[in-house]
Amino acid sequence: MQHVNSKLDKAAILKAIRSCLPAEQKNVELHEPYLCGNEWNYVKECLDTNWVSSVGKFVDVFEQKLAEYTGVKRAFAVVNGTAALHISLKMAGVDEGNEVLVPDLTFVATANAVTYCGAIPHFVDCDEMTLGVDPKALSDYLSRIAEIRDGECINRETGRKIKVLVAMHTFGHPCDLEKLSDLCKKYNLILIEDAAEALGSFYKNRHVGHWGKFSILSFNGNKTITTGGGGAILTNDEKLGVRAKHIATTAKLPHPFIFFHDQIGYNYRMPNINAALGVAQLENLPRFLERKRVLAMRYKKSFQDVAGVRFVDEPGFSKSNFWLNAILLDADTAAERDGLLEYLRADGIKARPAWTLMHKLPMFQDCPRMEIPMAEAMDSRLINIPSSAFL
Amino acid sequence: MQHVNSKLDKAAILKAIRSCLPAEQKNVELHEPYLCGNEWNYVKECLDTNWVSSVGKFVDVFEQKLAEYTGVKRAFAVVNGTAALHISLKMAGVDEGNEVLVPDLTFVATANAVTYCGAIPHFVDCDEMTLGVDPKALSDYLSRIAEIRDGECINRETGRKIKVLVAMHTFGHPCDLEKLSDLCKKYNLILIEDAAEALGSFYKNRHVGHWGKFSILSFNGNKTITTGGGGAILTNDEKLGVRAKHIATTAKLPHPFIFFHDQIGYNYRMPNINAALGVAQLENLPRFLERKRVLAMRYKKSFQDVAGVRFVDEPGFSKSNFWLNAILLDADTAAERDGLLEYLRADGIKARPAWTLMHKLPMFQDCPRMEIPMAEAMDSRLINIPSSAFL
Repeated sequence: MQHVNSKLDKAAILKAIRSCLPAEQKNVELHEPYLCGNEWNYVKECLDTNWVSSVGKFVDVFEQKLAEYTGVKRAFAVVNGTAALHISLKMAGVDEGNEVLVPDLTFVATANAVTYCGAIPHFVDCDEMTLGVDPKALSDYLSRIAEIRDGECINRETGRKIKVLVAMHTFGHPCDLEKLSDLCKKYNLILIEDAAEALGSFYKNRHVGHWGKFSILSFNGNKTITTGGGGAILTNDEKLGVRAKHIATTAKLPHPFIFFHDQIGYNYRMPNINAALGVAQLENLPRFLERKRVLAMRYKKSFQDVAGVRFVDEPGFSKSNFWLNAILLDADTAAERDGLLEYLRADGIKARPAWTLMHKLPMFQDCPRMEIPMAEAMDSRLINIPSSAFL
Repeated sequence: MQHVNSKLDKAAILKAIRSCLPAEQKNVELHEPYLCGNEWNYVKECLDTNWVSSVGKFVDVFEQKLAEYTGVKRAFAVVNGTAALHISLKMAGVDEGNEVLVPDLTFVATANAVTYCGAIPHFVDCDEMTLGVDPKALSDYLSRIAEIRDGECINRETGRKIKVLVAMHTFGHPCDLEKLSDLCKKYNLILIEDAAEALGSFYKNRHVGHWGKFSILSFNGNKTITTGGGGAILTNDEKLGVRAKHIATTAKLPHPFIFFHDQIGYNYRMPNINAALGVAQLENLPRFLERKRVLAMRYKKSFQDVAGVRFVDEPGFSKSNFWLNAILLDADTAAERDGLLEYLRADGIKARPAWTLMHKLPMFQDCPRMEIPMAEAMDSRLINIPSSAFL
């Protein structure tokens, strides 16, 4: 049912997607959990032993296994990725009236968490290859608007301190962490990696999460592994890690029966029953990653012959988890994106566009931002396609 | 091993507690979950159907059953009681630089949630009978320090607006809600009930949660029913309830594939797997309440003959859930409280004092407060004793 003047071959795109998916599956969601291991056993153990709440063996095991897998010194589990970001920003010293550099192309949690600290998100553009923060464009921008005064990075235009850069690994594809890390050093910014989508993604043979002072993961139901709802903070600074866990767990000082809290804290602990899911899921992570890679490579091949569309591949320096596969429409067919989405969804393929850009949301429209041509392009031309590990 | 000059008969107190507990149980925690119903069936259903995350049947059922049981128009489940308080305060319009009246005798979450809004907790004393906010003392205090200007309650001493009174139902015993409600009307304050501990508690034959504009529950592992970690917001204002849920769920507008968020939101959804636990637990709530009442009455009887100690009974106008049983030492034996705690704990009875008073915590020591003789008394003389429903 295409318009006569359509440039986009919707049927070819649908066919390219369908050819990569199991034939028997009519409705295909974007990303669903794959509970195929010890989930039952571990969750049942929680129930049988009465340890379902905020302290318990599985929380400890999950944290330890996460640290082992990612290679960081300390990982700790929290209630979701948003909470992990909030604590990380607090620990980085983000305070009332500071600015935090945040990608314009991201899930709203990244910018929301900045506001929880009383700070202001300052939106930056993304790179065409990584879909993450563009180091070159940001460097040019900072050289125009920022300067170091008394060791602090100041936005000359607003007079406010810029404290942190949050680099988000979009759809699991790693940003160019070395370049961003260098840029942060130059401007005395603290780097936080928002790796909510990037468990299992490697930058130059090392798991993401090592370049930020803190990094965060998410285990929401739509992520590569899930705990129902959950997140984690990763850090190589053991002392900061202990402090972060302290404020995320109501800042109570250890004592057998006295309740004494030494600062304002948060109730961000992950319950043991959710961590039990996480431990089981983590055991299957290598298998999930393998399957997700196979699916991504099938998509890549399948889209080679479709005109006007490009499969978004992993950046050359990285090994991506391919959390959410994506295709990019040619610029001259951007106007047909919503029509394509409707077409795919009518067939049962639950495709979707990227998130609405942050600066287009009413609460962030007056926040400072650089020119963001690439994020605008992604906003109008990118489509995510089904990516569950069991496909 | 008592001191020669001790006035407190520790052995008699231990005996009075032990006589109410199952003989075979050496170590007795203060409050543990009792997972004796459909917990496994429902959790297993989540795992089998792949619905473990933030949307799902059990969240809806749990919310509906909570509303039915408490009689409020709308209940919705969130990630914990702290989150429920935060959203309730936001919805009540608490903003930067406002003051919120909060009991000095409470768990730290009540005061922390106020600070999350940029507001200042203002601590008030408790009543000897209810352990909750003392309406008479607060009325006297407000008549001295507060005045209504342009319809708003102003603290004359600080010049700040006082927006809300949070009334917490201590250990499950209801506050005197009618009197507090009248006082709030007189001073144009919004009443929020912190019923974190009070699921199953009734004030004048009606479940708590109807007097506050919003009320909150907690389902932490130490509560009467548990979801691992969790909480809920209750309200009789359906419109406000819908708005509260909206901001607690990232403020995303409903759309099949567009991510558009119309304001700053929070990621406070309760995952389906936790709600599954909650539905099973709620089915057994009447049984838990019955058993907890039997235990409380046993304690009451047992302590009738112990000199120097009084069992904290439910206020006359209420039917309490007896979440945490408590005994109160006579004033002249307060100095022996910690010795008694050690003595009981050495025998395996995990007794504990009430929370450290809020104004004694470093982050709240400069907050405004009224004179708090009764909270001080409770702080020095009260002891919580084991209260699990399975005892």
